[in-house]
Amino acid sequence: MLRIGMLTSGGDCQALNAAMRGVVKGVCSKRNDVEIYGFQDGYKGLIYSNFQMLTSRDFSGILTRGGTILGTSRQPFKLMRVPDENGLDKVEAMKHTYHKLNLDCLVILGGNGTHKTANLLREEGLNVITLPKTIDNDLWGTDMTFGFQSAVDIATDTIDRIHTTATSHSRVFIVEVMGHKVGWVTLHAGIAGGADIILLPEIPYDIKVVVDAIKKRAAEGKHFTIIAVAEGAISKDDAKLSKKELKAKKAKENYPSVAYEIAERIQKKMDQEVRITVPGHTQRGGSPCPYDRVLATRLGAAAAEHILEGDFGYMMAIKSGEITKVPLAEVAGKLKCVDPEAGIIQEARMTGISFGDR
Amino acid sequence: MLRIGMLTSGGDCQALNAAMRGVVKGVCSKRNDVEIYGFQDGYKGLIYSNFQMLTSRDFSGILTRGGTILGTSRQPFKLMRVPDENGLDKVEAMKHTYHKLNLDCLVILGGNGTHKTANLLREEGLNVITLPKTIDNDLWGTDMTFGFQSAVDIATDTIDRIHTTATSHSRVFIVEVMGHKVGWVTLHAGIAGGADIILLPEIPYDIKVVVDAIKKRAAEGKHFTIIAVAEGAISKDDAKLSKKELKAKKAKENYPSVAYEIAERIQKKMDQEVRITVPGHTQRGGSPCPYDRVLATRLGAAAAEHILEGDFGYMMAIKSGEITKVPLAEVAGKLKCVDPEAGIIQEARMTGISFGDR
Amino acid sequence: MLRIGMLTSGGDCQALNAAMRGVVKGVCSKRNDVEIYGFQDGYKGLIYSNFQMLTSRDFSGILTRGGTILGTSRQPFKLMRVPDENGLDKVEAMKHTYHKLNLDCLVILGGNGTHKTANLLREEGLNVITLPKTIDNDLWGTDMTFGFQSAVDIATDTIDRIHTTATSHSRVFIVEVMGHKVGWVTLHAGIAGGADIILLPEIPYDIKVVVDAIKKRAAEGKHFTIIAVAEGAISKDDAKLSKKELKAKKAKENYPSVAYEIAERIQKKMDQEVRITVPGHTQRGGSPCPYDRVLATRLGAAAAEHILEGDFGYMMAIKSGEITKVPLAEVAGKLKCVDPEAGIIQEARMTGISFGDR
Amino acid sequence: MLRIGMLTSGGDCQALNAAMRGVVKGVCSKRNDVEIYGFQDGYKGLIYSNFQMLTSRDFSGILTRGGTILGTSRQPFKLMRVPDENGLDKVEAMKHTYHKLNLDCLVILGGNGTHKTANLLREEGLNVITLPKTIDNDLWGTDMTFGFQSAVDIATDTIDRIHTTATSHSRVFIVEVMGHKVGWVTLHAGIAGGADIILLPEIPYDIKVVVDAIKKRAAEGKHFTIIAVAEGAISKDDAKLSKKELKAKKAKENYPSVAYEIAERIQKKMDQEVRITVPGHTQRGGSPCPYDRVLATRLGAAAAEHILEGDFGYMMAIKSGEITKVPLAEVAGKLKCVDPEAGIIQEARMTGISFGDR
Repeated sequence: MLRIGMLTSGGDCQALNAAMRGVVKGVCSKRNDVEIYGFQDGYKGLIYSNFQMLTSRDFSGILTRGGTILGTSRQPFKLMRVPDENGLDKVEAMKHTYHKLNLDCLVILGGNGTHKTANLLREEGLNVITLPKTIDNDLWGTDMTFGFQSAVDIATDTIDRIHTTATSHSRVFIVEVMGHKVGWVTLHAGIAGGADIILLPEIPYDIKVVVDAIKKRAAEGKHFTIIAVAEGAISKDDAKLSKKELKAKKAKENYPSVAYEIAERIQKKMDQEVRITVPGHTQRGGSPCPYDRVLATRLGAAAAEHILEGDFGYMMAIKSGEITKVPLAEVAGKLKCVDPEAGIIQEARMTGISFGDR
Repeated sequence: MLRIGMLTSGGDCQALNAAMRGVVKGVCSKRNDVEIYGFQDGYKGLIYSNFQMLTSRDFSGILTRGGTILGTSRQPFKLMRVPDENGLDKVEAMKHTYHKLNLDCLVILGGNGTHKTANLLREEGLNVITLPKTIDNDLWGTDMTFGFQSAVDIATDTIDRIHTTATSHSRVFIVEVMGHKVGWVTLHAGIAGGADIILLPEIPYDIKVVVDAIKKRAAEGKHFTIIAVAEGAISKDDAKLSKKELKAKKAKENYPSVAYEIAERIQKKMDQEVRITVPGHTQRGGSPCPYDRVLATRLGAAAAEHILEGDFGYMMAIKSGEITKVPLAEVAGKLKCVDPEAGIIQEARMTGISFGDR
Repeated sequence: MLRIGMLTSGGDCQALNAAMRGVVKGVCSKRNDVEIYGFQDGYKGLIYSNFQMLTSRDFSGILTRGGTILGTSRQPFKLMRVPDENGLDKVEAMKHTYHKLNLDCLVILGGNGTHKTANLLREEGLNVITLPKTIDNDLWGTDMTFGFQSAVDIATDTIDRIHTTATSHSRVFIVEVMGHKVGWVTLHAGIAGGADIILLPEIPYDIKVVVDAIKKRAAEGKHFTIIAVAEGAISKDDAKLSKKELKAKKAKENYPSVAYEIAERIQKKMDQEVRITVPGHTQRGGSPCPYDRVLATRLGAAAAEHILEGDFGYMMAIKSGEITKVPLAEVAGKLKCVDPEAGIIQEARMTGISFGDR
Repeated sequence: MLRIGMLTSGGDCQALNAAMRGVVKGVCSKRNDVEIYGFQDGYKGLIYSNFQMLTSRDFSGILTRGGTILGTSRQPFKLMRVPDENGLDKVEAMKHTYHKLNLDCLVILGGNGTHKTANLLREEGLNVITLPKTIDNDLWGTDMTFGFQSAVDIATDTIDRIHTTATSHSRVFIVEVMGHKVGWVTLHAGIAGGADIILLPEIPYDIKVVVDAIKKRAAEGKHFTIIAVAEGAISKDDAKLSKKELKAKKAKENYPSVAYEIAERIQKKMDQEVRITVPGHTQRGGSPCPYDRVLATRLGAAAAEHILEGDFGYMMAIKSGEITKVPLAEVAGKLKCVDPEAGIIQEARMTGISFGDR
């Protein structure tokens, strides 16, 4: 009997179901004696032993469905090694569930926070294999995460729609794009949507440069400007602050989000109506795009192969088009950022896109 | 020679170009001696005599394009009859442009505010024919306005995407839908998206009823709730206030928008994470849906017929599937609201949707 | 106890699930003692007593899902009153199942053929209520059927995509659109997609007129032409033939479908590359558009009201925006065709669309 | 003065305009003295000196537009080196146009056939730089061509829609996907759409294996099967024939396309209704997906850099995420096929997909 625990953790995203389907179809293509324990709402389910027994049938027809049939939750990593207010040591609780159910391995789908915990469980001796899930594409060790391209599609669709309004009204529009601390989604959606200015966490902006870019467009007869702003975008001045100082400043200013802050700064420097659009959680929702379905299916099937071979302790990844494995120890805690000197940035600059830095 | 002035006024929306294409194709199918004066950015263009000469070729290939090739602007009606700070009487300025260019008629595409001004120009003796453009569907005298169904499609897509996130995370989600003072878009998108609670300006809500509906769902094992909120939604308490009192209250509370207000009220009454999504201007943007393209084309072609016959002073409308005309004098200043006793409301209630009122 | 039998019959289409969800949610909002018998694959399930017991939970989450959770099949009406090769009288078999299960009523979702059988069952004394399902929109007694607008959206999307290819390559493109014997989908998709020529069963075409329209465009410098052809389109010559003669002619010519026939006729008359696109069954598939979801939900909820009141023998319909009921006896066997003199045809002609007739 | 000739050749596809925009924006970001000669309808325009002078303004706003603003045509390579029936040596004619206009270089966008001619022009001493355009993704030397992902999206959408019909009706559905002689689009769309069987030119199929796979599904209670067939799919028996024999056989059988052939073969071996869907040219049409817009923009901008540096004789390519250049001499005449032993094929097999070969 092969007993597989499975959980999805962190913010939900597209193709989680597709990836799990890949794992289960893959394992069941070779073995008939498989039991699948689906833990509910991420690590919570593992901690409190909330699970449901699933069969391959439960994973049929979910390739195109958004969200996760297991549910998910954000689990603060910090709490892990110390007992909580009820005296519960969560790591021990997870190990207990694992051993009690006599699991052969855990399949964990998640992003950066999830991988820290996954690596911790590996260090504690559990058989763990993970799949790189996040719209942010910020996981170290893989060229691409599933969810990313779907989020780019949705953010681009937002910019496309704003485009028609912007051209009709002669305004400045800011579209705030998700991505946590990195700018991948914003960069790709910004280029794809034809944004005029793209502001990323990795390239701190100077508000004067941003305003000059708007004015330069107006001088050329282009009376609207579309700015794609990453939710983690930061100004050059703020980038110089310590983490603590920045936090205090942000708390004091109390903008709903970064787009509002940038809008106000622009309006202070020029008499120009600025509108804000925040597609927000829609960027994580709905059916995965075909690209993500293929990627998630491939990663899941490859994970199945490793499970069947008993080869654990890895995150499945894609590099140069091929699915490969990366040791969890290498992945955990590292962030994959946009390189300000990367080819894609140079190419974007060539087409006239301003990154607000110079 | 037939000289036609044309302008689009108010917020932009889908199918403006499709409608203008219908007018121009229609007129040019019968006459070769047509001159089209496209005024830029709405009434502004008429006031300041900013226009471009257009040919039927300019209207080719724009059926599917969002926005308006003429540009648009919001023109405050109040300023119309009194000279502005520069001593300009805007109504006289518009009449002057009209007569100077020796126009035979004005084709005006717009919503409620636009129609007040259009009727004023008619009263001043200009030949005016209008087309009912607004995503809000609040124009009196027509079953439907173009832009509405496209906006419903986009708002529904937002709710669809939120659905996958909501089910994965067990949260309350509020989606704020456009519609100005009426609830048409919210009602239709709410039903189409499977919202659990729909809050409309026409049916003031009681926050206790809203919270009870969320709790009832939780008691049935449904740990998420999706609320579709019209941007003009109002509580029963607020509905009792005078316009002035309400304005003062809103100014004091200073919520970014109504969704934030309702979210806070829910969170005060129950320990429940509430997330907000505001698709905003995307609801006006992008290519019109096929329904709106057909409607706009039909309205435009019918307007052409009236122009060719010299029959002016009307808004083109659709009633029971047939294009018809309604006197501008009847339309101006009237709002078409959702009837709280309408069949669609009853039917929605039958399917378990709560309107937060009882 | 309220025992409801339910079946979907004929070709599948969008919003079948949405409609059934509306019925079940509606009934269960008022009564707790409901049993739902879902017959599989249309009338077949009723004949052979193949069914599954369903609860309101089975209808949760299916609002947006294409197809039908009950399955469907085409049931030849002619076989109904005579025993088949196995000596089975199908009408008696259906009555037998109905009475054996002690059903209070049958909810039947289907198109024209389905309604003939539904009316027959009514005449036999069964309590029947029906919902107007078909992409063809050819059901008499209702302004609109659900599935229609979704099919229009898909067919329009096809024409939109062909548009970019057509303009790049200077060709004639024929897009063949579904609709059985009527032209509703083709008419609406043709207008929405900006087709230059639209050929409908209700307006027989003259191939010379079609070719002249293509040549006229070429003379105006427009080197591509898009023709939207209804699958039931017919030439003036063929329209003069008897049913038998036509059948013989079609059998002899043996074109895969009408688009191929028209393409060959065009190519015989002019040296012009003609390409054919047949979106086919995709027009019935996928998630229903918001318009259809609202319509289906409303019709379903209204049906629930009639079921609760014990008011049977009707098809639910929409007229001038309100849900109403129409006696089955009036509906059965009647076809709703496009009126060649209707306003929408005149308006389409105004915009330069040729119907190939003059 | 920098004089750039530009042309798009072969079948149209998505993101041609995006790529040209990238080139022009890139060049004009560094130089003001640029003249752009847009040749009409591919090499034809170069041969017959049909062109229009374009400015950077003509390339503004076309990022999202399908097709090509230059028009395109298929140019048979074989005719190139011999004078045609009018005594015209086409290669000389192209060289003549190039020199007459005093061009500094030619930017050529196209697929396999296009690249053969482009390389020929390079050999003749012209400065040539090319961009890899094709939905087929069969160009040697680049990981990816633009147009491919957009085509995958459309083909997947077709399979998605067929899925709902297939499940409702218990049928076998064949979806025929474009791709010329290779299976890239079919492979990706097949995996993304959850096809049960995928037939590619690179993996000849055995009809018995295909039928067995259908029967196996039926035995498992899955009464529908979706087969994604590449337009170039071939049976094991046919793969053994010589090119000439195969051509003769195909001519004799005279199926409209490969899907019809396979459908008939299946129906001969089992009593099962088989339906065919051929999305056809829609796979080339419409707005490019965000992935293709980014790729095309990057390739275009990188080409601009080479133009500015006077570095010619290359196709721009993407390898491992970075834009690079590949000598035209290496690219011309080579086909990039799906490797039957590639990881993606193994992974697809793991999830239960049959390739009909074993």
